[in-house]
Amino acid sequence: MAEDAPLDEELIAESPANEEARPDDRIDDERHDEDNILKPEFVRRVTDALDEGDKQAVYELVEPLHEADIADLIELLERDERRQLVTAITDLMSSDVIAHLNDFVREDMLEALPASAVAEIAGELETDDAVQLIEDMDEADQRAVLAELEPEDRAAIESALSYPEETAGRLMNREFVAVPEHLTVGDLIDFLRTGEDLPSEFYEIFVVDEKHHPVGTCQLSWILTTPRQVALADVMKRDQTLIAANLDQEEVGNMFQKYGLISAAVVDASGRLVGQLTVDDVVHIIAEEAGEDVLRLSGAGEGDINEPIQRTIRGRMGWLFINLWTAIAAAAVIAAFEGTIQRIAALAAIMTIVSGMGGNAGTQTMAVVVRALATNQLTSSNTWRMITRELTIALANGFGLGLFMAIGCMAVYHDPKLAAVLWGAMVVESVTAGLAGVLIPVTMDRFGIDPAHTSTVFVTTMTDVIGFFSFLGLATLFLM
Amino acid sequence: MAEDAPLDEELIAESPANEEARPDDRIDDERHDEDNILKPEFVRRVTDALDEGDKQAVYELVEPLHEADIADLIELLERDERRQLVTAITDLMSSDVIAHLNDFVREDMLEALPASAVAEIAGELETDDAVQLIEDMDEADQRAVLAELEPEDRAAIESALSYPEETAGRLMNREFVAVPEHLTVGDLIDFLRTGEDLPSEFYEIFVVDEKHHPVGTCQLSWILTTPRQVALADVMKRDQTLIAANLDQEEVGNMFQKYGLISAAVVDASGRLVGQLTVDDVVHIIAEEAGEDVLRLSGAGEGDINEPIQRTIRGRMGWLFINLWTAIAAAAVIAAFEGTIQRIAALAAIMTIVSGMGGNAGTQTMAVVVRALATNQLTSSNTWRMITRELTIALANGFGLGLFMAIGCMAVYHDPKLAAVLWGAMVVESVTAGLAGVLIPVTMDRFGIDPAHTSTVFVTTMTDVIGFFSFLGLATLFLM
Repeated sequence: MAEDAPLDEELIAESPANEEARPDDRIDDERHDEDNILKPEFVRRVTDALDEGDKQAVYELVEPLHEADIADLIELLERDERRQLVTAITDLMSSDVIAHLNDFVREDMLEALPASAVAEIAGELETDDAVQLIEDMDEADQRAVLAELEPEDRAAIESALSYPEETAGRLMNREFVAVPEHLTVGDLIDFLRTGEDLPSEFYEIFVVDEKHHPVGTCQLSWILTTPRQVALADVMKRDQTLIAANLDQEEVGNMFQKYGLISAAVVDASGRLVGQLTVDDVVHIIAEEAGEDVLRLSGAGEGDINEPIQRTIRGRMGWLFINLWTAIAAAAVIAAFEGTIQRIAALAAIMTIVSGMGGNAGTQTMAVVVRALATNQLTSSNTWRMITRELTIALANGFGLGLFMAIGCMAVYHDPKLAAVLWGAMVVESVTAGLAGVLIPVTMDRFGIDPAHTSTVFVTTMTDVIGFFSFLGLATLFLM
Repeated sequence: MAEDAPLDEELIAESPANEEARPDDRIDDERHDEDNILKPEFVRRVTDALDEGDKQAVYELVEPLHEADIADLIELLERDERRQLVTAITDLMSSDVIAHLNDFVREDMLEALPASAVAEIAGELETDDAVQLIEDMDEADQRAVLAELEPEDRAAIESALSYPEETAGRLMNREFVAVPEHLTVGDLIDFLRTGEDLPSEFYEIFVVDEKHHPVGTCQLSWILTTPRQVALADVMKRDQTLIAANLDQEEVGNMFQKYGLISAAVVDASGRLVGQLTVDDVVHIIAEEAGEDVLRLSGAGEGDINEPIQRTIRGRMGWLFINLWTAIAAAAVIAAFEGTIQRIAALAAIMTIVSGMGGNAGTQTMAVVVRALATNQLTSSNTWRMITRELTIALANGFGLGLFMAIGCMAVYHDPKLAAVLWGAMVVESVTAGLAGVLIPVTMDRFGIDPAHTSTVFVTTMTDVIGFFSFLGLATLFLM
């Protein structure tokens, strides 16, 4: 067998096998349940040991866990228990554990540390994780930490911070493998075996021209399955997805999903290769962005259960306060019909059915539209189709459910005119809900405003006001 | 330079570079806008050419597009235009385009094809994509297509179909690279260069024992950076995340996210390696599962804009119908206080503010809890903390917003007793909303019922009924 390069003992010692060797323990073991959640009994064993001050026992319990599980464990504990735990397992608190921690929990823990200690952690992290660690600090703390960093790390982090928040430039990793086009597969393998400044893991080799512009890309599997003497130019794929450094992270996620990317080259405005994004960094963005919509539509802000409670209260109360005005507007409509209600008190009960149905129908449509906008399924090319589609659905629902309610109303109140008014109001309300549910988020999106964040208030106002107005208005016209 | 293997012309001819070589065209070009969405002008050019019956022009427009963009284009067109387009670009309709298509659009198009044509497409797809293609067909069609398949493909698909829907076994790919432990890095590279049954792309080599149980895993980058004579056993990582074939896909997504996986081994009940999952197959699951919650909480079903409209109407109407009963229950509460409302008609307006605020507050809490359950952040270890947290938030919001409304009520109605009743009702309502928002989804989840699917109805019922009851009840007690 041919030998390509001398045996390098150091390289072996540093190989991930020896760093992380641990028995496999991730399937339904004594620590995890079948959904891979830490079992409450295990968490209790840790907290009991903490209560008894038995650091040795704590350490032995935590030691076999994966970094991500240690982070989970810290999050599951009460605030004061967290600090006790961290003190007991200091040398297990690797930068990987810190990178896995929830933002709020990490922030809370870092606040207790001096800048030099934070800088030490940041220096150990990959650029993207270090940026995440530092970007949320206030400016003074940020500057203190940056000052403590090695010049190289500081330059990398400062360059990342120069891109706007939530863009590819913030997320990307500055460590990647880029080689010139003239190499053969063999040259490349030799370079990789001797190269020192390589990232610890990579999935793709970028081929660049002399101006550092990407000209092609090689999956590692193509290199491993190709003979040494083949030119890289013949193996690489010239057609590659390039990501602009200032692209919004939601669109980065959409591109990774759409093209099934594992990693991708990030280029600056002049087309130079400046970094790479790997899917493991993008996957939590994809999940976050998709999960965010439900939180934003319901006004729950970031909806993070680890957020400091004062901040959560402020955020939620702010949203409820805005919505109170919606409710007040709707109440004003009702108050305008006080005379009608005084004469037919039954209307007060029935009107809430109309507005309730409208609110639910509007929310349905809005949820569909917001998701379709976020996933780029709804574009200006098919907006009109979407509107007619939702209008059809609204008419079907309005007539169908309205008929049902009209029959029910007849059965209870024996008043055909009241039943007809209810039916009419429900059709009007259903159409209002359907149209508001499409048009409001689409309009917001067209103006560059996040539809998930803003649509609910307007849709609710529309359905409440029109619901009460159409029902009480028709009742005043035909029943008084 | 050492030569490891003879130059293999065939291998080069088959390399991805030559198959897919195309100029890079994915950043802000004439076809895509800055969010990587197909521009409406481009879509119009295609539909205009279709209208004119100019197949050549259609073909030239579509040819430079990536498979995922061709799929997007098809989805953006009207139903009859879709068929015209597909006829114009038959030889661009690769299996990759079909794999990228929306389920409903694909189903609609496949219905027009005979079983043999579907089988031909399925045979070209990777197992996981073929399964996706076939699993939604009715059983007779499924059997017809399976009968037309090559025995090997059929066996693979049938084995996938033997796992429950939405599990790792359905998603996994049966093509992967597994080698015995005694190899060196050099042996492995030689095997890969000559091996014929290799998947076209892979990111990880699985090392297995003689019973085909996984014992370790090697990232390709580790192999490429390690000298040939090093034993695989010294490079591989023994600690790997194994995925049980019957694990639910949502949990698969959580594991990929949590551990930052690129690919992972799937094992059957006896621990044998039966397949691999790669992150590009999991990433759309992660996005779907996270995005699903907003659709389920709002009762929008799958919320797919390509779903046949009759099915959408049925789904949405069903949800609204169930919610009508909630509204009827609330209306019944109001009707019970008809006498009170008849005397003080203003109550009819004010009561909707109380229930509206409660509905919003309940939705906020519910959204946070449902997401926290889905992402495994909320477990039985921290449920109690979550309950006290939400109770605190609810009390703060109830007292704060209630005070604001009481002051407003005084200003409008000059009735301190009415203001006090409103304040009291808002505190009761806020606490009800907060507790229902946590306890209902948590209870559903504990009983193995999808909390996103079922919580809204119960939370709304609670907030509506308690909102009206507390306000009208207190009003009857203190104002009459």
